Amino acid sequence: MSLLIVGTVAFDELITPFGESGRIMGGSATYAGLAASNFMSDIQLVSIIGEDYPQEYLNRFSKRNMDIRGIKTVEGGKTFFWKGKYHNDMNSRDTLETQLNVLAEFDPELPEAYRNTEFLMLGNLTPAVQMKVLEQMNERPKLVVMDTMNFWMDNSWDELMEVLKKVDVLTINDEEARQLSGEYSLVKAAQKIHSLGPKYLIIKKGEHGALLFGEGEVFFAPALPLEEVFDPTGAGDTFAGGFIGFLAHSRDISFENMKRAVIFGSALASFCVEAFGVERIAEINTGEMNARVQEFIGLTQFEVSLQS
Amino acid sequence: MSLLIVGTVAFDELITPFGESGRIMGGSATYAGLAASNFMSDIQLVSIIGEDYPQEYLNRFSKRNMDIRGIKTVEGGKTFFWKGKYHNDMNSRDTLETQLNVLAEFDPELPEAYRNTEFLMLGNLTPAVQMKVLEQMNERPKLVVMDTMNFWMDNSWDELMEVLKKVDVLTINDEEARQLSGEYSLVKAAQKIHSLGPKYLIIKKGEHGALLFGEGEVFFAPALPLEEVFDPTGAGDTFAGGFIGFLAHSRDISFENMKRAVIFGSALASFCVEAFGVERIAEINTGEMNARVQEFIGLTQFEVSLQS
Repeated sequence: MSLLIVGTVAFDELITPFGESGRIMGGSATYAGLAASNFMSDIQLVSIIGEDYPQEYLNRFSKRNMDIRGIKTVEGGKTFFWKGKYHNDMNSRDTLETQLNVLAEFDPELPEAYRNTEFLMLGNLTPAVQMKVLEQMNERPKLVVMDTMNFWMDNSWDELMEVLKKVDVLTINDEEARQLSGEYSLVKAAQKIHSLGPKYLIIKKGEHGALLFGEGEVFFAPALPLEEVFDPTGAGDTFAGGFIGFLAHSRDISFENMKRAVIFGSALASFCVEAFGVERIAEINTGEMNARVQEFIGLTQFEVSLQS
Repeated sequence: MSLLIVGTVAFDELITPFGESGRIMGGSATYAGLAASNFMSDIQLVSIIGEDYPQEYLNRFSKRNMDIRGIKTVEGGKTFFWKGKYHNDMNSRDTLETQLNVLAEFDPELPEAYRNTEFLMLGNLTPAVQMKVLEQMNERPKLVVMDTMNFWMDNSWDELMEVLKKVDVLTINDEEARQLSGEYSLVKAAQKIHSLGPKYLIIKKGEHGALLFGEGEVFFAPALPLEEVFDPTGAGDTFAGGFIGFLAHSRDISFENMKRAVIFGSALASFCVEAFGVERIAEINTGEMNARVQEFIGLTQFEVSLQS
């Protein structure tokens, strides 16, 4: 098995009703990689950082046996930085500051060893960069999972449409699904989005769970009800990383197995929101993950006889 | 088995993006009763109507073998009327008109035959009326399910607290749970609400499903993803009626069986929203209901091995 994750490795600064994080480790590839590392080692990361990115943060990847040869350091450059503030309900947030820095010149060149990878996660990046990664693969991967956002729908529609044609699983939130499809009903939105390319669609609804559409079926996983959501940053990337990590490890991309992958992804995301940044997600062990999956079983599974 | 449902039998007039209903059959006891009638006959309804209430509507109850001796007709009176308009997202609505009419003088007197009923559903009514019903029971019912709303929290707090002490299962929506408990987290809200009396709490989240809290456990049922939500009116009452009807029929009030009841209630609610008013819910047969429950099984059930 092999898994390649392309996305941001960044600094975040978060303000929540519980406090301020200061400048901490963030980025889509960071969360997705750490989540996937619960299932496998040698995950290949492709990203770009500045000289200001601390070795200590890079060590966290190495500690989880991740392959970081694909993270390019730009001499004299500064790492992508995002600062945001969450509202009291923790469901909405304002961006206070975005410094693209080295991300503006991200032009990924895959190490030769990465070009035969079977499972590919394209984190939320400009569609042109996502396409560039796809074009460098020697063979079409067994499974391509992609994340995107409303910004690219507003600003790079044509490029986005081109990438979507080459993707198996798209992960977006409910508002983005509505924008992408022009349909309010998520069932209708899924039908339209399938016609754009992705045979599978995961609609992330935050505290309201996630829907998986594909092969004419629908599967739903709730978010675990928690006493406190401390910091939602990275929960979507953690979910996606857990999803593809589970699939890459099991090498089974059937719809039945994708259901399991959605559950494991949801379980990992439930840890992510319990602390600032990667604090919690960087240190999970298998026992903790299994216990969380057991909670999902209790939350959702039932036995029923039909009425006569 | 026996089931008593107390609530409104009313006229509704609905404006949705799909059209206008005109004056149609509505009310909490109407929806709850029709839903419960999928599991049992001889459901006892207690409500109040005016002389303007059509016999044809009453016949719909009789057609489902419901006992309507407890529906009092006020001579010369007019039936409770509510008119509302749904916004484009179908999740929020404005009340355009409320005419309490005979509901203002609702002072239920239970027929003697109703006073030994084992399962009691108290629809959303003033807490003083709900208490009056409880006080007329010869014995404490095996299970009391109660609905309420923010209006009574604003206007009848003390009476509401008194009724809550006597209730087993409270069904409210997420905003009401937050108002009642003063907690934003639904997990914390549930803990507080248990301490007010109800050992079980169902939080209805509309298109985002329903949570059942009790015995230190949580169970979640999603709403069925639909191509079109035509009219959400009565979905919560349909859910509650299906829930208690299933329990009353099976005579099993364990948490495991409440999970099943939540699934059947959700299945029935998914029919309710497909047409104006009771149009769809008044005509469901067992085969249709079972097929819908099968859809919930497909939507939520998975088999998983834990990671080693």
